[in-house]
Amino acid sequence: MKTGVRPSRRSVLASALLAFAVFSAPAGLVAQTADPLPSWNAGPAKQSIRAFVERVTQQGGADFVPVAERIAVFDNDGTLWSEQPVYFQFMFALDRLKDLVKANPALAGQEPYKSALSGDPKALAALGEKGLLQIVALTHAGLTVSDFRALVLDWIKTARHPRFDRPYTELVFQPMLELLAYLRANGFKTFIVSGGGVEFMRPWAEGVYGIPPEQVVGSSGKTEFVLDGDTPVMRKLPEVEFIDDGPGKPVGINRFIGRRPVFAAGNSDGDQQMLQWTTLNAGPRFGLIVHHTDAVREWAYDRTSHIGKLDKALDEAPARGWLVVDMKTDWNIIYPFEKK
Amino acid sequence: MKTGVRPSRRSVLASALLAFAVFSAPAGLVAQTADPLPSWNAGPAKQSIRAFVERVTQQGGADFVPVAERIAVFDNDGTLWSEQPVYFQFMFALDRLKDLVKANPALAGQEPYKSALSGDPKALAALGEKGLLQIVALTHAGLTVSDFRALVLDWIKTARHPRFDRPYTELVFQPMLELLAYLRANGFKTFIVSGGGVEFMRPWAEGVYGIPPEQVVGSSGKTEFVLDGDTPVMRKLPEVEFIDDGPGKPVGINRFIGRRPVFAAGNSDGDQQMLQWTTLNAGPRFGLIVHHTDAVREWAYDRTSHIGKLDKALDEAPARGWLVVDMKTDWNIIYPFEKK
Repeated sequence: MKTGVRPSRRSVLASALLAFAVFSAPAGLVAQTADPLPSWNAGPAKQSIRAFVERVTQQGGADFVPVAERIAVFDNDGTLWSEQPVYFQFMFALDRLKDLVKANPALAGQEPYKSALSGDPKALAALGEKGLLQIVALTHAGLTVSDFRALVLDWIKTARHPRFDRPYTELVFQPMLELLAYLRANGFKTFIVSGGGVEFMRPWAEGVYGIPPEQVVGSSGKTEFVLDGDTPVMRKLPEVEFIDDGPGKPVGINRFIGRRPVFAAGNSDGDQQMLQWTTLNAGPRFGLIVHHTDAVREWAYDRTSHIGKLDKALDEAPARGWLVVDMKTDWNIIYPFEKK
Repeated sequence: MKTGVRPSRRSVLASALLAFAVFSAPAGLVAQTADPLPSWNAGPAKQSIRAFVERVTQQGGADFVPVAERIAVFDNDGTLWSEQPVYFQFMFALDRLKDLVKANPALAGQEPYKSALSGDPKALAALGEKGLLQIVALTHAGLTVSDFRALVLDWIKTARHPRFDRPYTELVFQPMLELLAYLRANGFKTFIVSGGGVEFMRPWAEGVYGIPPEQVVGSSGKTEFVLDGDTPVMRKLPEVEFIDDGPGKPVGINRFIGRRPVFAAGNSDGDQQMLQWTTLNAGPRFGLIVHHTDAVREWAYDRTSHIGKLDKALDEAPARGWLVVDMKTDWNIIYPFEKK
């Protein structure tokens, strides 16, 4: 009886441990049986991603990259979620501007607020970087970091995209969510490196992308710390501290991450230097550009777009070996809500 | 026979899985049997650390903190390693200054370089923050980030501390190494948040402390990205970008980590605001001050020291409930080389 019981106990123990081991196995140890990228159509794009991940995780292989060095960086606007008709953070700023106008109606007559509030896409486009920054500065400054966070979370929960009438966080790219998860399952640490505001992305990036706040690099305004009685306060100041765009992206990567990535994904000329910094380096490296080619399911734009202009980086891609993903042909679904 | 073999196979499997599970277990799941803090003497300091870690990792307990929120921040100079007779980064800058003088002898006659090179401790002390920054700026700027990294690594390997005649990295505090490991074993993510230069710490922090580059926050100079032909270059500029000290520490924590820590350790007034930002918050929080009280094994200094001045934070500690660690009585060894 004793020996009859033991194996059974051991079997239970072994099963429990096996389940536990599978659950907690370091990335790469568990064989991938199911397709980790089901929203990617079979073809050279999907194939090259899988081949790269297999090469760099092959212990003892010539291209093996130790787990600590598996740093993957992703632009956000236009790469992980949509960015039309205008960066979603600007839609947030615009909604906040409307609230500010209620308290101070005179603002509505002043530029660039007047154009921004007109709702005219052409007027919006004409604002340019400077006008956008001015509106972001007005609507983001003077708050504490925690009040701002609360505003962002409230907006993310309640605001709806004008074309799709869905929360903005439903306009994330399903194939990119799969790519993030696939890389993480293979020991990569995934970072956002975005021109967007770091305080705007952090509140929801963990829930939506599985990327924790400490792995979000973005543009930032200055902040100051003050002790108000026994309450420490972190206040946002109306001064730009860092623009994490273009040549600012490798600078931000160096400052915040301190290692050169082995994988970078972007979609516009603002990502060109990040792609250069990542791929023009010894050892296996992967550069990916999301090309917006699907006017039906998403938007089609590149060289002349006022948002997400993709021109120089598109020209540079072939010589550098960057993968240009054609959304229309490479992705069988774009948004998670298209899943049947 | 069949039933006789099975248990044995299962037993081997179970053992293998058990070993694997222990190896890869998420922090906190494996019972701690051995003392994780052997270099800490039994007493209230050690007890309070252990009690805190047990409380916040107790699933279902009132003070449970989810793994994602277990952020622990550590000052470096004077908290993780010694800082006398002057911050070790300054010893590095001084050695580099000597090399620069060989190439440009006129520097030796100019202040503050003249005082710095005199070797007179009083002259060194008289340089003040401004003189030190000037020397650091001269000796650190104009290099690429990768050349600077190589210089740091070479210095870390070859330079020796004047009092102990040992590499500087042997002057790390064994009890703090144990504390870092203990926290990590319990699901904490450990960060350095130091007034020291981020580019100076990152090259060796992973090997010495187990803290990867992306978890090192520090002071920084500006950098610029340029593409030199097909070679991307990150160059250090002679402009201060950020001083991660005093009120700069919570600002740095907010910028780089984006969450408020639950555990902070420092040793000087430069850590006061980091301790406030960490501990003056809802939920269980721990603040720790390393008090340098051992003139025989290390150094004894606090309120009037030109390096690592501990005055206001020491006065504030009792009211805030910060643990003041007395190096002389709380630590049975200070440096790893004291181990028998």
